Amino acid sequence: MNLISKIGVFDSGLGGLTVLNEICKHNTGLEIIYFGDTARVPYGSRTPETIAHYAEQDVRFLLSKGVEAIVIACGTVSATCLGILNTRYKIPIVGVIEAASSEAVKVTKTKHVAVIGTKATIKSNAYSELIHSADPDVKVTGIACPLLVPLIENGFTPNDPIVRMTLERYLDSIQKTDIDTLVLGCTHYPYLQNVIQDMLPSMKLINIGTALATNLRNKFNLKDGQSVNDVQYYVSDEDTEFQKIANSYLDSIQANNVQKINIELF
Amino acid sequence: MNLISKIGVFDSGLGGLTVLNEICKHNTGLEIIYFGDTARVPYGSRTPETIAHYAEQDVRFLLSKGVEAIVIACGTVSATCLGILNTRYKIPIVGVIEAASSEAVKVTKTKHVAVIGTKATIKSNAYSELIHSADPDVKVTGIACPLLVPLIENGFTPNDPIVRMTLERYLDSIQKTDIDTLVLGCTHYPYLQNVIQDMLPSMKLINIGTALATNLRNKFNLKDGQSVNDVQYYVSDEDTEFQKIANSYLDSIQANNVQKINIELF
Repeated sequence: MNLISKIGVFDSGLGGLTVLNEICKHNTGLEIIYFGDTARVPYGSRTPETIAHYAEQDVRFLLSKGVEAIVIACGTVSATCLGILNTRYKIPIVGVIEAASSEAVKVTKTKHVAVIGTKATIKSNAYSELIHSADPDVKVTGIACPLLVPLIENGFTPNDPIVRMTLERYLDSIQKTDIDTLVLGCTHYPYLQNVIQDMLPSMKLINIGTALATNLRNKFNLKDGQSVNDVQYYVSDEDTEFQKIANSYLDSIQANNVQKINIELF
Repeated sequence: MNLISKIGVFDSGLGGLTVLNEICKHNTGLEIIYFGDTARVPYGSRTPETIAHYAEQDVRFLLSKGVEAIVIACGTVSATCLGILNTRYKIPIVGVIEAASSEAVKVTKTKHVAVIGTKATIKSNAYSELIHSADPDVKVTGIACPLLVPLIENGFTPNDPIVRMTLERYLDSIQKTDIDTLVLGCTHYPYLQNVIQDMLPSMKLINIGTALATNLRNKFNLKDGQSVNDVQYYVSDEDTEFQKIANSYLDSIQANNVQKINIELF
């Protein structure tokens, strides 16, 4: 297999930047094309058919840029249509669910894992299936949290009382159980990781971007380099929030020179 | 001018159903095509260019169904691209802002009106311009409320504490002013009308759908009939919330037999 030096990364919006951030921490010398579908975010409240249609356009855009492998930096797409994408396109395509599921199985002591995600992700049962195939004894509790992406995409800060009240609503049922591991099953959620950890101090949190990025070199046959990664950013709608939020949260990337494209053409 | 018997109504999602509800209360014998762009909702956080692109596709879909006039049942589209649509298409197209602005000028005693709407609506200054052209002495305060559409589209009920806390945040600044009239500048907001009235008991609330529907017969040369209106529903993504929320809130319509279409083809 040839060494891969150019990869594509996509998400519905700015959630995928948390994955990109982790990829850039753990890899060097790569040329990376990032696409955020800001004209159609959020994906997580749509049907699997519509999500698959959007994801195929995202993949075709990245292919037009000459990428040799693709990271689906979106929990919803990874959960609902990784199989379809791998059937239809020949280059290696990985999602964020597999690595996170393996990690969850490894770290849980109580054998009870919770997954928070969008409506589509939780409905897909993708995490349960992967976790059960690794260890049938691990119980999985899925919790749909449809308001978290709109809160983040609209610039609500993690310590905002509205964010806290929403998180308390979603996480309340976890507190009375033996769950010891929580998968942040959407790439937007690392923006809220500190406040979630604050609310659930003894819970082991799994950031799906970190879980993937640390073994991306094994997944793809990545070229190693001494130079920093070169990232080009594309979005389907110009959005000042995109740069602002990305640059305020993320430590190893700077989302500058963002270019707009018409994703419907792909 | 020929009598119009078939009209199109569109919105980004289910907000426009509040306008359709009002149209059906005030008119009879019409054939109505409703389109909700549920695959790309919400519009209000996108740029005017993307909103215009989506709105043109929505109009072209309705034209393909043979409508003779169109109601833009979306505050965001009405605020940002009514002018473009009227330049490009020959049939009569009306938005929800003009009637609501006239109504606001009529009812305010303190000459200070507030408008709540999406980010794009408030940024457009469309309400201020129309209200000032009717009465330059009326002061207009615009408040962007980007989380209200996601709350409603995700099925949060009006009395939910998270909805109340969000509304309090957005409406807090109004309470210390001489504002006596509040335009609910997005067609989703009538779903929250009772709770807003409860929070601001002496405020005159303007429902932009009612303001439009009561004089639609003057705007368009509508055919009058004895029969009930015949409504056909189309969406760009199947959504069980659409029917559930519509049928639980609205008294003069039933959103049944909703058909899905691919809006990108228009």
